[in-house]
Amino acid sequence: MSSHPNEPVPARQGLSRRKLFGAAGVGAAVVGAAGAGALAGRATAAAPAVHLETAVPFRGEHQAGIVTEAQDRMHFATFDVTTNSRDDVIKMLADWTEMAERMTQGQEAFKNGATGQNPYAPPTDTGEALGLPPSQLTLTIGFGPSFFVKDGVDRFGIADKKSAQLVDLPKFPNEKIEPARSGGDIVVQACANDPQVAVHAIRNLARIGFGTVAVRYSQLGFGRTSSTTREQTTPRNLFGFKDGTANLRSDETDKLNRFVWVGDGDGPAWLTGGTYLVARRIRMRIEQWDRTTLLEQERVIGRQKGSGAPMGQSDEFDELNFTLKDKKDKPLIDEVAHVRLASKENLGGIEILRRGYNFTDGSDGFGHLDAGLFFIAFVRDPLTQFIPMQNALSRKDALNEYITPTSSALFACPPGIREGDTSTFWGSTLFD
Amino acid sequence: MSSHPNEPVPARQGLSRRKLFGAAGVGAAVVGAAGAGALAGRATAAAPAVHLETAVPFRGEHQAGIVTEAQDRMHFATFDVTTNSRDDVIKMLADWTEMAERMTQGQEAFKNGATGQNPYAPPTDTGEALGLPPSQLTLTIGFGPSFFVKDGVDRFGIADKKSAQLVDLPKFPNEKIEPARSGGDIVVQACANDPQVAVHAIRNLARIGFGTVAVRYSQLGFGRTSSTTREQTTPRNLFGFKDGTANLRSDETDKLNRFVWVGDGDGPAWLTGGTYLVARRIRMRIEQWDRTTLLEQERVIGRQKGSGAPMGQSDEFDELNFTLKDKKDKPLIDEVAHVRLASKENLGGIEILRRGYNFTDGSDGFGHLDAGLFFIAFVRDPLTQFIPMQNALSRKDALNEYITPTSSALFACPPGIREGDTSTFWGSTLFD
Ligand code: HEM
Ligand code: HEM
Repeated sequence: MSSHPNEPVPARQGLSRRKLFGAAGVGAAVVGAAGAGALAGRATAAAPAVHLETAVPFRGEHQAGIVTEAQDRMHFATFDVTTNSRDDVIKMLADWTEMAERMTQGQEAFKNGATGQNPYAPPTDTGEALGLPPSQLTLTIGFGPSFFVKDGVDRFGIADKKSAQLVDLPKFPNEKIEPARSGGDIVVQACANDPQVAVHAIRNLARIGFGTVAVRYSQLGFGRTSSTTREQTTPRNLFGFKDGTANLRSDETDKLNRFVWVGDGDGPAWLTGGTYLVARRIRMRIEQWDRTTLLEQERVIGRQKGSGAPMGQSDEFDELNFTLKDKKDKPLIDEVAHVRLASKENLGGIEILRRGYNFTDGSDGFGHLDAGLFFIAFVRDPLTQFIPMQNALSRKDALNEYITPTSSALFACPPGIREGDTSTFWGSTLFD
Repeated sequence: MSSHPNEPVPARQGLSRRKLFGAAGVGAAVVGAAGAGALAGRATAAAPAVHLETAVPFRGEHQAGIVTEAQDRMHFATFDVTTNSRDDVIKMLADWTEMAERMTQGQEAFKNGATGQNPYAPPTDTGEALGLPPSQLTLTIGFGPSFFVKDGVDRFGIADKKSAQLVDLPKFPNEKIEPARSGGDIVVQACANDPQVAVHAIRNLARIGFGTVAVRYSQLGFGRTSSTTREQTTPRNLFGFKDGTANLRSDETDKLNRFVWVGDGDGPAWLTGGTYLVARRIRMRIEQWDRTTLLEQERVIGRQKGSGAPMGQSDEFDELNFTLKDKKDKPLIDEVAHVRLASKENLGGIEILRRGYNFTDGSDGFGHLDAGLFFIAFVRDPLTQFIPMQNALSRKDALNEYITPTSSALFACPPGIREGDTSTFWGSTLFD
């Protein structure tokens, strides 16, 4: 234990230089404190880009917020429909679409909504984003299995539109799912570089939805844990590791068509060009993690903490090499390392798009921070991508000692609304 | 109810132009939609300044994080001491001070802590802030009444150092205090422009404190609700109103000496140059608020929602004028308006420094967002400033219909540690 940590510690030997600078190969030379010291100041890396003035287009072939450059903050909310009126649901989705387009472009939810309308009526915008720029806000909608059929009832006459892939996620080993934080009829993922803008958006949708939907749960994410474009630096999750290195990227069109976008004939026509959103709130036992050695942490992940390079390699973006061994003939990337089990090599070529966020929700009542990763992934087919991947991880992943998924949800996200299309709104094709 | 809000609404008449542009006087002329439309695009105001590269000096006459330009994000944590060992507490506070100075300057908690030390030991920095700039991180420490005497026991031999002003805050009308979110032996307020930097700091302090302290509760704040310097634009709270307009400012030296900094002879010497921190988690009933008219909202606050100007005035920074009346001889600033009751005019000259944050902690299980204001104030004397002010508000404030305080805490914050002073650490003067 290092409860007295400011006693002098030995400068890290052997592994450090390779890790920090990617210079030498596997059998690195011994280096002293001077070399290792170069990372001592955190701020040597470039500051993260924070785009506040930029608006992300709302319309397009696909919804924004999926391959869009991952914004820094998220407010994720799921809603349960509280009415059986198909018309009310349709009306709300049409309202939401109009509001979403306005808000993502940096406008109020309704024109002059906060102060410019009738003073004898409630303002139609709640006002806390007045004066704030678009901040790359995206709003992404999806529909859960229970939107189509709830407790066996087809409330809105759309049961036949449910795809075979839109299932209740199975129970996986090693999870403790809280139903009140799981599922939901509708999801809206709000991502922005300013949390106040994301919170404002969800709140105004909830407000207009009053009487039609109620918030089931919502989650604030404060730090992105993925890169979705090549321009973005790789952020770090709360285990201190770079997260998103081997993620799919927005310019990998072929891969996105193979692994993210629902294809023609994959399922019902309304979903073509859409995708599935998987959400899992994963509690991290950070105190326990923080007590393990650097060697153990790197064994568990299968990458080096400093650089993010795979074990045995030197650059963050080097390919994972599962055949490298140490002198004792042990694989450098452990047999149960997270990246090995999650890799396409281990899973018959499967890949997914990850787009999660770090969270900290106060404390758990036992003296620990209630913190973790709000895992979000987008896949073309949960049955052949997410479920087998999660199964592989749930059974063997060395990470399991340090994490517990506490929520689980799956949603089908329709494609985008095209420029100039005035007849379509969020989910309208479900009601044709 | 506006569940069908995209029906055309009447352009706001009469009040709008005055409110939006502060042009005309109290009896404003009728204006049409064209004038009112100028605020329709939210982004007309300047984008908030986000200073990521800047480090705030750790040392000085006063602690940083009090009159420091309010950063955008906060992670607030209180700790309970879990040991009776005075030595352990002293050791931890010394460690904390060293770590705090490093982290606020953009360094790791310990030199090469994340990856550069012994791989066979747990890293001494948790790593998730590697590569992130200082982001104006400040860490501010304070000690609660229970640090001095807990359940009648003087655990650390410092009971005589407790000031008479460091009391358990009384029960006020109209509050529902949750003990598990209140109090605490020690508080650390981490403010930064990047939440990951603030979370990293608290977590590393908690980590090193393991065995000596345990986190009692922690709160993430995502949007500042105050300006503390004249350069800062006034942000908005979740009721959509500008918050911080009439706050004390960092350059008002005389007022700060009168209302914020503990003076020589006010109490025990160790606190001279320090201050008291009041923390109150105030849940806002935002759904109920969102259903009230603009007129009612402005009556409750006593200021105009668009501009932030006092009722009857035209500019945000106009002085409150409590004598103005409408044609029916009713005061324009209502008798129970929040700003009237909280004003120095109503309170015999009392002022306080506000430095709170908006929060959204998921949902409350009843379909509502669990959102509000994490109120923080710094005062020279809670007995003569905060308590009478809160009493005045608790009894009559029109806001009470829309808010409920759910936590309460008071801490005494020592002065700053001077440049070059190597013998002093956080709280060391308590143990002299
Ligand atoms: C708290 C939980 C988790 C943590 C801390 C975590 C952390 C990481 C880290 C540090 C990497 C290496 C860098 C990178 O390539 O992004 C990684 C890779 C990856 N993770 Fe996770 N992860 C978590 C949960 C999951 C889950 C639930 C899944 C999917 C079911 C998943 C799928 C992947 C995949 C596919 C990769 C890339 C593997 C490759 O290199 O091909 N992770 N994760
Ligand atoms: C959720 C709860 C609260 C909300 C929404 C709120 C909101 C506001 C707003 C909008 C203003 C006007 C702008 C400004 O001058 O900053 C204001 C002013 C003020 N508030 Fe609050 N406030 C809350 C709680 C409190 C509490 C608990 C206190 C102290 C006990 C307080 C003390 C003050 C003071 C001193 C002023 C300045 C009054 C003046 O003009 O002289 N507020 N508040």
